Amino acid sequence: MGKQRLEAFSDGVLAIILTIMVLELKVPHGASFQALASLLPTFVSYVLSFIYVAIYWNNHHHMLHAAGKVNGPILWANTHLLFWLSLIPFATAWMGDNHFAARPVALYGLVLLMAALAYYLLSRCLIHHHGAGSLLEAAVGADAKGKFSIAVYAAAILLSFANRWVGFGLYWLVALVWLVPDRRIERVLALRS
Amino acid sequence: MGKQRLEAFSDGVLAIILTIMVLELKVPHGASFQALASLLPTFVSYVLSFIYVAIYWNNHHHMLHAAGKVNGPILWANTHLLFWLSLIPFATAWMGDNHFAARPVALYGLVLLMAALAYYLLSRCLIHHHGAGSLLEAAVGADAKGKFSIAVYAAAILLSFANRWVGFGLYWLVALVWLVPDRRIERVLALRS
Amino acid sequence: MGKQRLEAFSDGVLAIILTIMVLELKVPHGASFQALASLLPTFVSYVLSFIYVAIYWNNHHHMLHAAGKVNGPILWANTHLLFWLSLIPFATAWMGDNHFAARPVALYGLVLLMAALAYYLLSRCLIHHHGAGSLLEAAVGADAKGKFSIAVYAAAILLSFANRWVGFGLYWLVALVWLVPDRRIERVLALRS
Amino acid sequence: MGKQRLEAFSDGVLAIILTIMVLELKVPHGASFQALASLLPTFVSYVLSFIYVAIYWNNHHHMLHAAGKVNGPILWANTHLLFWLSLIPFATAWMGDNHFAARPVALYGLVLLMAALAYYLLSRCLIHHHGAGSLLEAAVGADAKGKFSIAVYAAAILLSFANRWVGFGLYWLVALVWLVPDRRIERVLALRS
Repeated sequence: MGKQRLEAFSDGVLAIILTIMVLELKVPHGASFQALASLLPTFVSYVLSFIYVAIYWNNHHHMLHAAGKVNGPILWANTHLLFWLSLIPFATAWMGDNHFAARPVALYGLVLLMAALAYYLLSRCLIHHHGAGSLLEAAVGADAKGKFSIAVYAAAILLSFANRWVGFGLYWLVALVWLVPDRRIERVLALRS
Repeated sequence: MGKQRLEAFSDGVLAIILTIMVLELKVPHGASFQALASLLPTFVSYVLSFIYVAIYWNNHHHMLHAAGKVNGPILWANTHLLFWLSLIPFATAWMGDNHFAARPVALYGLVLLMAALAYYLLSRCLIHHHGAGSLLEAAVGADAKGKFSIAVYAAAILLSFANRWVGFGLYWLVALVWLVPDRRIERVLALRS
Repeated sequence: MGKQRLEAFSDGVLAIILTIMVLELKVPHGASFQALASLLPTFVSYVLSFIYVAIYWNNHHHMLHAAGKVNGPILWANTHLLFWLSLIPFATAWMGDNHFAARPVALYGLVLLMAALAYYLLSRCLIHHHGAGSLLEAAVGADAKGKFSIAVYAAAILLSFANRWVGFGLYWLVALVWLVPDRRIERVLALRS
Repeated sequence: MGKQRLEAFSDGVLAIILTIMVLELKVPHGASFQALASLLPTFVSYVLSFIYVAIYWNNHHHMLHAAGKVNGPILWANTHLLFWLSLIPFATAWMGDNHFAARPVALYGLVLLMAALAYYLLSRCLIHHHGAGSLLEAAVGADAKGKFSIAVYAAAILLSFANRWVGFGLYWLVALVWLVPDRRIERVLALRS
């Protein structure tokens, strides 16, 4: 079975998730800058989620690029990942609307955590299907960043109840770790994993 | 006529159906867990519909993969299938908003039933176009699962008026039959068909 | 310049137009059949528009299939067509919400008329680019159905103000002419054009 | 790394941006022409934004067509462009709902300015990756129109506070410069740049 249609379907779902989030930026009543400023928490949430969905698209792109074939379990592991990612617009809006209250911040982290676990599961299914020593196994590697992300999400969820800004800050930290191609970070993470 | 654009268009429509359902998960007022918990019926409906749309994408993918060419009737049978699938977000939201009341549960089943009949019709058009003994006919086979699904949907619609949880439970049963690749189920169904 | 990305972009826009129309089927309050029945005008409008967008996708598919190359004017003629088609969800909802009042029925016809003119313009740009005697010119042909549709839309808009059901009925007539592959209709139209 | 999936993902996002804008054309209460006329400012904003998104798709199409390969920075520069374009539906609706008040007109210009800067950045990343003397560098050229647009957007934002119609008029001027393939304009701009 070819992977082209899996890529096309995932691209479609990710593109829609990325774009419908902007529908949660409800047009404010009135033309003043104060009216606009009231959207700031929702906007900041939107920026973070836009970055996360783009990171997932980017990583998904790379992992599937190294894959040669897919099977039933891979299709379903991919659907499972898309399910958790599809909840990002909801979690984003709940967090923004409530100005980063503790529970919505924790739920946002839970959605990120479940998506990261789903991504990990997908990578295992792909490696299992392509076999040890395959190009795909080399491309995914030890996935130190992925394991680091899962640990930070779990910590951020718990810390959100003590101080919500710590939780929210940790989500930005993970996003930056994925965005900045810093060799030193990667080396440190590789040593620790 | 090639099948690529038919696949691409169907993928697009299915990806949008899958994703816009999340817009029905209206962001609750307030940041409490109670506010979140009030969404539970809608969320459970969302999960079921996500699974169904993914099953349809998966089966559509496989059937078209075995197809080599398409014609006018196939294009329209495919559009007919997409029409019924496009009603899933509406039926999902009505069922969730009304906490699985009997009539919305029955309507949800009716949409599933019509989609299943449309899928069956599409498979007949494809087999007719490719001829007896074709790879496509072998791939679709006796379609015992498809016939079983149609029978269960019809029963579930009627049973919803007696006990709505029976109807709702049967929808999950059909989804599980498609999800779990149990050879024994397939063999039994094959014998009965 | 290749035509693949033009096809992919048009497919994407048409798939989204087709699917977001269902968002106008607002979930009714209450679980009664009366609540559901109140949506009937919107649902009937939805069915008609679904058929029209599918017809456009189908015809666009066939015309571009015969095309070998595209240029700047073709890209813009295609965008112009997508613009008018993008107004179909709005016109559909206005017509359904107002239970087929005269003005919304006329506006719906105006959108169909402008889309049909835009499609005609696109076909002229394509034929001009491919030259007389090309496969594309043969595929488009005299386009008797297209000219017939334009005339009926114009008549339907005017007749809507006398009797809205005449206008609405004529839209269904045109849709049926495109759906039913009746050789006799095509022959008659070809003689008259 | 191939460019196909980057093109497909960008097409998807642009197609969704283009189409969800129509959701801001809220269906008016009542079937009168006055009710329809009250949507005129939103409709005019919609037309302008439709043209802009189509211009971006068109230019993106051409630039990527000349590209042979992509890398990490290009992927992120592309995502950055999509981010600013994703804000166009919001800026369009705020401008239309407030009947072209000064601040919304200025914000609309700011979104256009940021998108134009993001496009410029993407073109630099692509040229850097393909090297001097590449086909891509020749295709992008001095990009006089791009630099002219950036200057006019900046002026329009400031002038919006003096007279909002000047700002709004300048956005139409830039759109026309991109739409009309006037060789003389291009030559003059090329001389000045």
